[in-house]
Amino acid sequence: MQRFIQIPTDKHNGLYDITRHIRDIVKETKILTGFVHVYVQGATAAIMIQENWDDSVQNDVITLLNKLIPHGIWQHDHQDNNGDAHLKAGLVGPGETIPVVDGQLGLSTWQNIFLCEFDGPRQVRNIVVTLYRA
Amino acid sequence: MQRFIQIPTDKHNGLYDITRHIRDIVKETKILTGFVHVYVQGATAAIMIQENWDDSVQNDVITLLNKLIPHGIWQHDHQDNNGDAHLKAGLVGPGETIPVVDGQLGLSTWQNIFLCEFDGPRQVRNIVVTLYRA
Amino acid sequence: MQRFIQIPTDKHNGLYDITRHIRDIVKETKILTGFVHVYVQGATAAIMIQENWDDSVQNDVITLLNKLIPHGIWQHDHQDNNGDAHLKAGLVGPGETIPVVDGQLGLSTWQNIFLCEFDGPRQVRNIVVTLYRA
Repeated sequence: MQRFIQIPTDKHNGLYDITRHIRDIVKETKILTGFVHVYVQGATAAIMIQENWDDSVQNDVITLLNKLIPHGIWQHDHQDNNGDAHLKAGLVGPGETIPVVDGQLGLSTWQNIFLCEFDGPRQVRNIVVTLYRA
Repeated sequence: MQRFIQIPTDKHNGLYDITRHIRDIVKETKILTGFVHVYVQGATAAIMIQENWDDSVQNDVITLLNKLIPHGIWQHDHQDNNGDAHLKAGLVGPGETIPVVDGQLGLSTWQNIFLCEFDGPRQVRNIVVTLYRA
Repeated sequence: MQRFIQIPTDKHNGLYDITRHIRDIVKETKILTGFVHVYVQGATAAIMIQENWDDSVQNDVITLLNKLIPHGIWQHDHQDNNGDAHLKAGLVGPGETIPVVDGQLGLSTWQNIFLCEFDGPRQVRNIVVTLYRA
């Protein structure tokens, strides 16, 4: 089972909560036990599991990555001026696998699934969702 | 097939080797070929594959993460004072998938599976283990 | 379904594009929908999804990791002098899962699959490829 979701982004760097979309797919496919694999196409975006009480941790993720991986000092910048976006995406990674337990996403209370945009805004980011029934 | 393990932690930041628990589950479920997905719930812990000759690399992991992600300078600290724990957890990630080969975990000699605690001690960390038979 | 590939490395730190090998395995196994899990054994190597227009981003990945995780300052260096290699491998991670969509790897145009060598050269790095048909 596989589904596709498309998410627009409106910031150059930002996190977007996609938990609701993944939850709807788990519900629709009626999987009770297994997992869901969430993968974003494009080499300047990533998927991260992170807290969603408010947007403070999301802002901190961007602050941290900008500090560790500053803009404008990379070899790739001579081509596309987005070397930092590729490095952030590679380090965080394009996919996460989340267990499905008793028909629900096996996230804890404060764990949500985020699309990380590092080279936006983009009209659309394509996400592939693949499910496994155990 | 899915199993649950619970691990207590006694340090604020520390790595805990859970390979034996995962190996027991693979043995019990009698999978010959496939993989095992290990996922920790809670947005301040993570799973890392790392060397286990002695505890030097485990200590180095904590030293590195404290250097890259210092305590006390994050927006989220105004709420919970644990912004660094969320950032460490998000960067390392809550899950790892390990192949099962000939009925054994497909780890190399020095690869072990570690629970990373970034906001302990905790009475329990809940880990979801989901298996796939190829 | 599971396959094994062996890749030699000729640099101390370097990225090696293994996309072609994984694409051949997907083609051979005739999976139409599902995913492929790519896992490198050995605690000083990793798998990263990254751009492959030319080698600039690959060089930038090595530059970044050497900057974040310098050589020679770790507790583990007193044993093997390769503490940085273990830390780089642990942070990037030994595996990636890539969806298979319509019989093709679900990578976008510029996403390729790289073996990351952090303690080479090595005669061989062993990679385990496990496939799931959805």
